[in-house]
Formats: sequence, C-alpha cells, structure tokens
Amino acid sequence: MVINHDFYMSLALKEAWTKQGLTYPNPAVGALICNKEGKILAIEATQRAGQAHAELQACISAFVQMGDTTIASLHDANAQHAYLLNNHHHKFEGCSLYVTLEPCHHQGRTPACSMLIEKLGFSKLICGTLDPNQQATGGINALRESGIDIETGILQEECETLLTPFRKWQNNTPFIFFKLALFANGVYDGGLITSKESRTYVHALRNNIDLLVIGGETVRVDRPTLDSRLVGGKAPDILIFSHEKEFDQTIPLFAVPGRKVFIEDNLDRIKSYRFVMIEGTQKMLEATQTLVDWYCIFYAPTIQTGKTIQFNKDLKRIQLLENKHDIIAWFQKAQ
Amino acid sequence: MVINHDFYMSLALKEAWTKQGLTYPNPAVGALICNKEGKILAIEATQRAGQAHAELQACISAFVQMGDTTIASLHDANAQHAYLLNNHHHKFEGCSLYVTLEPCHHQGRTPACSMLIEKLGFSKLICGTLDPNQQATGGINALRESGIDIETGILQEECETLLTPFRKWQNNTPFIFFKLALFANGVYDGGLITSKESRTYVHALRNNIDLLVIGGETVRVDRPTLDSRLVGGKAPDILIFSHEKEFDQTIPLFAVPGRKVFIEDNLDRIKSYRFVMIEGTQKMLEATQTLVDWYCIFYAPTIQTGKTIQFNKDLKRIQLLENKHDIIAWFQKAQ
Repeated sequence: MVINHDFYMSLALKEAWTKQGLTYPNPAVGALICNKEGKILAIEATQRAGQAHAELQACISAFVQMGDTTIASLHDANAQHAYLLNNHHHKFEGCSLYVTLEPCHHQGRTPACSMLIEKLGFSKLICGTLDPNQQATGGINALRESGIDIETGILQEECETLLTPFRKWQNNTPFIFFKLALFANGVYDGGLITSKESRTYVHALRNNIDLLVIGGETVRVDRPTLDSRLVGGKAPDILIFSHEKEFDQTIPLFAVPGRKVFIEDNLDRIKSYRFVMIEGTQKMLEATQTLVDWYCIFYAPTIQTGKTIQFNKDLKRIQLLENKHDIIAWFQKAQ
Repeated sequence: MVINHDFYMSLALKEAWTKQGLTYPNPAVGALICNKEGKILAIEATQRAGQAHAELQACISAFVQMGDTTIASLHDANAQHAYLLNNHHHKFEGCSLYVTLEPCHHQGRTPACSMLIEKLGFSKLICGTLDPNQQATGGINALRESGIDIETGILQEECETLLTPFRKWQNNTPFIFFKLALFANGVYDGGLITSKESRTYVHALRNNIDLLVIGGETVRVDRPTLDSRLVGGKAPDILIFSHEKEFDQTIPLFAVPGRKVFIEDNLDRIKSYRFVMIEGTQKMLEATQTLVDWYCIFYAPTIQTGKTIQFNKDLKRIQLLENKHDIIAWFQKAQ
C-alpha cells in the first residue's frame, strides 16, 4: 500500500462518513493531524451542529495524545476553542492537517476553524475540496496569506461526493436518501434485520432529518413509532405515502408529540423539506426512484428465507462502512 | 478514533486480507512499520508462496520510502533479504514492526523473518498472535532474547481468524470456502455480476486452490472453463457435483490440460484435497453447508430482477473488503 496524501485523506474521509447524515445542517467533514515527524495524532469528524467541527475535534484529540487531558473535560466548542488558543504552547507547530473540506472562515455557532489553524501554528494544510458555502469560504486564501503550506484537491471527487447533502441544503433543495435493511441474501422481511448498533444509527439519522417518508402498508403491518428514542432525540415529521386515507390512530407514530403526520397519495410534500429519509422496500423503491439521491443499504450477516426486492437500478457505491454486526453501504445512482 | 496498537494492527490485518487465499500454503499475514517518530512507513502483506513474507515486503516498502529505490528493482525474496542486510545502514533502528503473526524463525523458501528483524535493528515488535506452525515458531523468543521490546496479543482474535485456512492446512484437513456473487439486492442470475477486478481476484483464488467444486446444472448452463486465465495461472481440479454422469465433453472445462475432472454424486472427494473453493448458489449452499468454513460474498452495485437464494444460515462477518466496483465480504458460521 502506498502511504501518501491519498492514504491519509482516505482515513479522514472514512471517519467523516461515520457521521454522514448526523451533522445537518452542517457538512460531514473529516480531519487528520500528523505531527512534524509524520505520526498520526488524531482522526476525527465533524460532530452534531453546534458542536466541534472536524478540525477542532482533531485538535482536541491530538492535544490529548500530546498529554494534555484537561481539554477532554470541556464539551462546549467555544470553550474548547478558547482553551486551545490559550494553552497550545506551540505544540502544533510543524503539524500537518488533512481535512476533507476547506476550513470554515466565519464565526458561526462555533469560532472559525481557519483562525484556529493559523493561531495554533500548523505548518501544512492538505484539503480535499473547497467550501461551496459562500458564507464560510475564504479559509484557504486567508491561511495561504498567513504562510501555511497548502495543497488542495486530494481525493477531490470523493471529498465532493461526501458533501452532496450539504450542497443540496445550501441550494435550498431537499436531499433525499433511501434506507433499506436486508439480510445477507437480500431478504427484507421476517422481523428485525439489523443490530441495535445499526438501529441506533438510524435513530440518530431520524433525529437529524426533517421528514420521514414511509409506505401505508408498512404503517399498517408494523405499527411503528418512527421516533429516535434510541438516541433520546426528536421525531421527524412523517409522510405516509398511501392511496388510502384512513389509518388506525392508535398506531404509535400518531401519538408522538411535536410532529406532523401527512397521509398523501403523492410525494410532492417532499419538496417543502430539506433533509428527507425514505424507509421502505419494493413499492417505495419504485415510487421514489426519480427522487432519491442516495441509497443506504444495511446488510445483516444472516441468510434467511423470505421476500426479496425485484427492481432494476444501476448504482455506484460511494462509501462502505461496517459496525460489529452489519455492513452499511452508501450508493448513488450510476452516472 | 483512538490511535493505538489496535489501529495500526487493524491496518495490517486489512492489508493481509487483500491476499487471503493467495498465499497458499503460507498463511496470510500483514505487517506495518512505523519509524522511531511513529510515522507509518509501510503497510504490506505476505505475497505468493516463495515470494516475500509480509515483514520483508514491509521492510522493502519502508526502505523505498526512506529513499533507497534500488531494492524496488529486486524481485527474488532471497536477493531482497540479502540487499537489506547489506545496505540497511541502521535505518531501521528505533522502528516498530506490527505483524499479525509471530515472525517465522526458520529458513524455508525465503530466509527467516526473525533474523531480518533482529539484524535490521528494529526496537519494537507488536504481534497479533503466535505461530501455530511448529516448524516456523520460536521467532518471538529469539527476538526477545536479542533485546527487542515485544508485545503480543494485539487484536488476537482477529489475527487468529485470519489464520484459519493456514491452521487447517497445517493439520492436514481441507479448508473449504464458498464463493457467492450477488447483485446488491441478492439476485444471483442474469449474466456477469461482478467486475473484471473481482473476477481477476477469483481467478487468482483458482490459481491457489487445488479443487473447485461446482454443480452439474451450472456446468450445463454456463459451459464454463473454470481456469485462471485472467492471472495466467494454473487450473484447479474440478469436482462436478451431479447425480447425472453424462456431460457434453465440448464444455471448455474438460479441455483444460493438466487438471482432473471428477463427476460425482457426493462430496467425499473434498477430503483428499487441502484448499477447496465451492462456486454455486442455492443448491450448492444446501449441499455443502456442513462442510464450509467460510463464505465469500461479492455484492455488485446493481439492483436487478432475478432469482434469489432461499436458505437459512446465521453467519458472522470476519472481514469486509472492497474494490472499485464490488463489496467483498467474508463470513464464517455464527458460533
């Protein structure tokens, strides 16, 4: 294996993908820090909105790795940022920062990463792609002027793909993904398919999306709640895609407070939301195929008899993740 | 992500798995070298039998990384070994070597890795598991006596699993794996499923196995050659599992020179081989389920209508790999 910029960037990329869908409305970003001798000190990703960006999170981990554990007890991004600025003692001088996206250059809910990188004294910045966010861009130019050695365009295509949801949100168009859970042989029925770890991730996704689309048959048969209780989060609005309007109102999803539930025979409602997850199988795949940006397929390690999907669609795999039990594969439509 | 011994060992492990099945009769082994400052210099795996072991291959890559490109032009393991011993100039002093398996301690077709590690002056050796091969073991003890700092048992379970085929070969029992190629929704028919890169890997596997088991129906319908032409390798013996004895002798597999073809209604023949691949789908899965050690499932990024497997089996995923097009997931039976 060749140990080069691509290698380090791919580690940052994979870490970013573990938080894909969980950073809304911020982009999923990954960062890796090497010290001046080239040792990896940290590989981190952007956390939930309002928490640390990937660059800050990586600086925190690197600082702990360097022996300062005080910072690990701080949980507010502003406090973490301030602590680093006051206590770095030039320990980051000579360090290289790999980041999938150009560091932000504006004070939002957290301070600008570009300022942090400059003040901490990083020597080298290696970027995947530039920030499409007009408000946040400019980090590269500012850092170049401050004398930091900068390379851009490392694994640019992959780093761009990672940003697909963010670009859509920035353009005020909905980002729509389809979640499908399968046994190893493609069977989709027969009770719980994926592990609690995977279902917890799905709940974390539900805690970020603003609309969940589901088929009427699934609602009738499974009587789901469709909340994010495994992460103690919020429940998204629900669009039940159905030609029948009458549903048993004792189905738990109707009792979740603070959500809207729509029962409609078309999918136009999606246009008025920005981050949309579709859960379903055969019928929903067919009904939504012109709308969907990405497919997220979970594969459980069990071969089981049951129903399978009969459908035709060429996909392109854009990332492959795993947890202890399941495979999580992300696809976009083939070009 | 925590950057620790497990992190480095997992990189060595994944690299070893890219050569799983291609090192017969040697074990699949991965190695990673960090310099004294902790920078990763090389991540490599054991090559084909008679070629470099993982440790040697990693030393070669590290040496190139350090600026000596002469060694890259040598292709014989003995010559590579000798070159390193004569030209290392103490460049490996202070380096750490992560290796999934205890380094071999005997002169086989290639010189002992333990001697190389000692002579090159490595400071630290981090091992996954100990060598079950009575002939090759002793590397750890010898290196400990020479004063190298040694840690063992890092990701031991995963490193043991990696060795499953080798342990079977050492015990003179067959290692048997089932190769299954599926579309993303589990469909297995409808022409070529996987990419040329995946098929090249399957040919490399065929170049290593000594018996390929296949169903009679597949032979009749697909009229396969079942050789390893994509890697210019040898063709394995074939066991056609079939209740019917008569096959059209113009089917290409019968014309491949130097192979035996058996047509039998039972699978007893497998016992007299050591490295066996089964290619098939539903019927072969059913017929071989008590025999199979591992399943290797390829998933192509296409959803397509067609036949799917109806079968019940709990599996445990032991490794997840990918190439540009396909997912390659290895499973063992669930415990």
